[in-house]
Amino acid sequence: MRTHYCSDLSKDNVEEIVRVCGWVNSYRDHGGVIFIDLRDKSGIVQLVCDPADNKKAYELANIVRNEYVLKASGKVRLRGEGLTNSKLKTGEIEIVVDELNIENSSKALPFMIGDKNVGEETRLKYRFLDLRNSESFEKFQMRSKAAIACRNTLDKLGFIEVETPMLTRATPEGARDYLVPSRVYPGEFYALPQSPQLFKQLLMCSGFDKYFQIAKCFRDEDLRADRQPEFTQIDIEMSFNTQDDVIKVGEEVLKDIFKVCGYEISTPFPRMAYKDAMENYGSDKPDLRFDMPLVDVSEIFERSNNEIFSSIAKDKKKNRVKAIKVENGDNIFSKREMKGFEDFVRKFGANGLAFFQVKEDGLKGPLIKFFDEKDLDEIIKKCDLKIGDVVFFGAGKKKTVLDYMGRFRLFLAEKLNLIDENKMEFLWVVDFPMFEENDDGSYSAMHHPFTMPNNIDDDIEDITSIAYDVVLNGVELGGGSIRIHKSDIQQKVFQKLSIDEDEQKEKFGFLLDALSFGAPPHGGIAIGFDRLIMLTTKSSSIRDVIAFPKTQRASCPLTKAPSRANDEQLKELGLRIRNLEKRG
Amino acid sequence: MRTHYCSDLSKDNVEEIVRVCGWVNSYRDHGGVIFIDLRDKSGIVQLVCDPADNKKAYELANIVRNEYVLKASGKVRLRGEGLTNSKLKTGEIEIVVDELNIENSSKALPFMIGDKNVGEETRLKYRFLDLRNSESFEKFQMRSKAAIACRNTLDKLGFIEVETPMLTRATPEGARDYLVPSRVYPGEFYALPQSPQLFKQLLMCSGFDKYFQIAKCFRDEDLRADRQPEFTQIDIEMSFNTQDDVIKVGEEVLKDIFKVCGYEISTPFPRMAYKDAMENYGSDKPDLRFDMPLVDVSEIFERSNNEIFSSIAKDKKKNRVKAIKVENGDNIFSKREMKGFEDFVRKFGANGLAFFQVKEDGLKGPLIKFFDEKDLDEIIKKCDLKIGDVVFFGAGKKKTVLDYMGRFRLFLAEKLNLIDENKMEFLWVVDFPMFEENDDGSYSAMHHPFTMPNNIDDDIEDITSIAYDVVLNGVELGGGSIRIHKSDIQQKVFQKLSIDEDEQKEKFGFLLDALSFGAPPHGGIAIGFDRLIMLTTKSSSIRDVIAFPKTQRASCPLTKAPSRANDEQLKELGLRIRNLEKRG
Repeated sequence: MRTHYCSDLSKDNVEEIVRVCGWVNSYRDHGGVIFIDLRDKSGIVQLVCDPADNKKAYELANIVRNEYVLKASGKVRLRGEGLTNSKLKTGEIEIVVDELNIENSSKALPFMIGDKNVGEETRLKYRFLDLRNSESFEKFQMRSKAAIACRNTLDKLGFIEVETPMLTRATPEGARDYLVPSRVYPGEFYALPQSPQLFKQLLMCSGFDKYFQIAKCFRDEDLRADRQPEFTQIDIEMSFNTQDDVIKVGEEVLKDIFKVCGYEISTPFPRMAYKDAMENYGSDKPDLRFDMPLVDVSEIFERSNNEIFSSIAKDKKKNRVKAIKVENGDNIFSKREMKGFEDFVRKFGANGLAFFQVKEDGLKGPLIKFFDEKDLDEIIKKCDLKIGDVVFFGAGKKKTVLDYMGRFRLFLAEKLNLIDENKMEFLWVVDFPMFEENDDGSYSAMHHPFTMPNNIDDDIEDITSIAYDVVLNGVELGGGSIRIHKSDIQQKVFQKLSIDEDEQKEKFGFLLDALSFGAPPHGGIAIGFDRLIMLTTKSSSIRDVIAFPKTQRASCPLTKAPSRANDEQLKELGLRIRNLEKRG
Repeated sequence: MRTHYCSDLSKDNVEEIVRVCGWVNSYRDHGGVIFIDLRDKSGIVQLVCDPADNKKAYELANIVRNEYVLKASGKVRLRGEGLTNSKLKTGEIEIVVDELNIENSSKALPFMIGDKNVGEETRLKYRFLDLRNSESFEKFQMRSKAAIACRNTLDKLGFIEVETPMLTRATPEGARDYLVPSRVYPGEFYALPQSPQLFKQLLMCSGFDKYFQIAKCFRDEDLRADRQPEFTQIDIEMSFNTQDDVIKVGEEVLKDIFKVCGYEISTPFPRMAYKDAMENYGSDKPDLRFDMPLVDVSEIFERSNNEIFSSIAKDKKKNRVKAIKVENGDNIFSKREMKGFEDFVRKFGANGLAFFQVKEDGLKGPLIKFFDEKDLDEIIKKCDLKIGDVVFFGAGKKKTVLDYMGRFRLFLAEKLNLIDENKMEFLWVVDFPMFEENDDGSYSAMHHPFTMPNNIDDDIEDITSIAYDVVLNGVELGGGSIRIHKSDIQQKVFQKLSIDEDEQKEKFGFLLDALSFGAPPHGGIAIGFDRLIMLTTKSSSIRDVIAFPKTQRASCPLTKAPSRANDEQLKELGLRIRNLEKRG
């Protein structure tokens, strides 16, 4: 229907007869001539409907309103002297309309196209209007380009994309499953997959060697700004490889994706041991766009005269005393503000937040009386303090202190505007513990139970695993591991997780079977695609990069209120469930 | 872990130290030296473990069994004179093993790798072994390459891939939905999408202009050899376009997909009106790898002296008399065989199957007595009969006759071996009726209710639509249409389908809304990807191109028996359903 997209026209087309299609972005009658800004996905071009040129076109133009859909043809001409619009790509030209077709009309809009000051409920109800603007289109265009770049890179590296099923057996992966009652097998149900993990491991057992998939996954969890119940991940698995091989593939994929998104990122990314990330940044996904590390001052505090501090500091296995320095903080923050920071860390379990100001005549603060001169100097040295700095201290249980001091570090960085929004700071976090203790004293797998441990026969607290996370600007983009490929090791892991033999057989029999018939060494990674695109498009919500998102309060009509069942569906669903219950 | 894939090694690598990984395909001890055929996805290479070269490797090789997983390094050498294996790509060389690692062992297999004479139940139970052969791998590799080619072509043409949701609102699309009870909205449920149809139309309303997706779709229907409850389709939609534009895009995509699958196909494909396909081939998806059309002989039969035939032939609106000629059939089939063909067509509603043999002295057969000489000549002329030919006749209700004569045509072609399995005969079937009558006298949309009619105000039987199917070798690969973009036309179509205003509002309110706010003219196509790959890989079942398929009798452990619910899940599911029922 068209010869050009609106924004493809320029001075080069002057005198050409062209035909364009699009929406009326705006219109105005100026001295008996109607000017229409016509918009398509490429941008805007100006139509001129002058009764002197074509009476019929002018008359039609007269009834045109915003968001009417037009097809217009005519000759391109230069705008007159002083009439060019430098804000518009096509601002030097206009189309003298010779033929105009109104392809569709539009009712008055519930909100202006591109208006951001509209409640989310309304925007989602009219999602087709909410998306009708170039900023949204460009995000989805980038998402598409990124997925294609990812696929082409992996294809080039010898990976093949295999589609794994959506209607699967429920396997315990931590989150709640979406369940689909079966009609063919009354009394049973399918689960929607939380990840293709076990399928890709089976494909490795099939000798497929290098698998990938941009896969839809599901978790029936409550919604958040950065979480949707259905999400997309780049899922990769390969055989006969080491952690370094997987990391290299991950870096190549990310590099090429970021390239089509307009970022040159350099590889290899730095690596940091889990332990160092926790100790120095209080997080397993440190934001390295700024430094400001936590400094361990346990040894100094152990020597203090304050019994509480010294007893905390003494138990270096269970507790931590961490310091964080704010350069020039004493000149930036008032004393009152600094005291107020305590409210922030208390929310995350802190009992308090001590701080020292560095004055011309030395450290100042209520706690200094507990330290002798040498140890105060030691603090200055260890924390690299200069006059005007402030240093904050957190003391208590290791897990709690690392957590709130890590959060406090981010809080300060935001307050001090330390974060360069244009930086892309990648990091591999490696050498994860295999297990973590639950509140009830039992253990869970830190990554998942299929991760290869380094030393399965050691004390459970000391067992590490060949697992790795990729972090960007403090966001966990993805994670992976080398998997267990031997059934005896897999069984030992299940034992540590208190899964007895019967349960192993029932839930994971097929996996133990697969590992017994020549499973190759293998490993892989999964990268959250929605989150990735959220970062490359600098979106504030994951909902900006999902065409039809869900929210707790509102949703698009087609995804929102799931439907009410009609009688027949109801009867069948009820039957399915009653069968489920009966055999229970 | 490896320097080369097994099959990448050749004479060019002689004297190189290489390292390969893979599975023991076979092994033999030959005069105190162990020869192992090691297999990976690329193929096979021979390892030689000679105690004279390396004692430790030889000892390990001694305990190796079929499907053990090995890593082996050593020097490549030429095999001795007369020892080359021309059947093997690497048959000229072998690796003298210097270091051998057993990466994993294998229990004795339930069946030999690649063995086709194994029951489907066993093969699916051990799907990871069933897929462990190069033929399977190559099918999935082709599937992956085809998907990438499809995406790159559409990207090049300016389309963007947008992911539409899996948890959606139920919309009536003909088949039964899979239902997912909602936890967040008690008493309601999601449906898994039967296609992204309405989502892609909304994206057109957003001005996205050119959309595609390789999308997972779901239908809760009984399984067949060529049907799975979850399937994949190439889904395309574009704005401001005509049927010709969509057809051109479809052809470009198919051409590029077939190219990576090893077929050069030529475009444009021929087109045939729905009416001609039905009249001449008794099918809306004619197999054109052979000709053998149905010939209409109603006018001649109308003049016959047989009252039954003449009265059938007289009503040209309701009935048909069709002939099909078999060249040289009188010399190929015995009279008894020809009589026996009646049994075939009776299965599809025929009352009988008359035939004439063409002998030296003219037509022979019990029916000739009803025709005068001129009409017998007319039959010979119209059907282009020669001595030795046979011509069969079907008479009765139009729908029934076209159906069974179309099937009979395929039956004969198979019997006569007329089908060249290497041919790829594409066809567009166009100009479909908009509606078709149901048995109860109501009407359904032949494509779907969103298809643009040409003449909505005409008699319902006469309304045609801008719809098109693409057919390959008698298989419907896909179909599409120009959609309705005006709400008044959409409402008229709903009325013809007896959907009253309340129901329209409840079920399709969001669509009618979207069409009222400047919906552009748009249309698209959906192509069945599983079926496409089934054809390009010459597979006999769709299950051969799906990694983890489902069957009625058996399935892979991970997709098979959907799980039984545990108590907590049960309670929750039951609660969800009871809530559904209560508000009913």
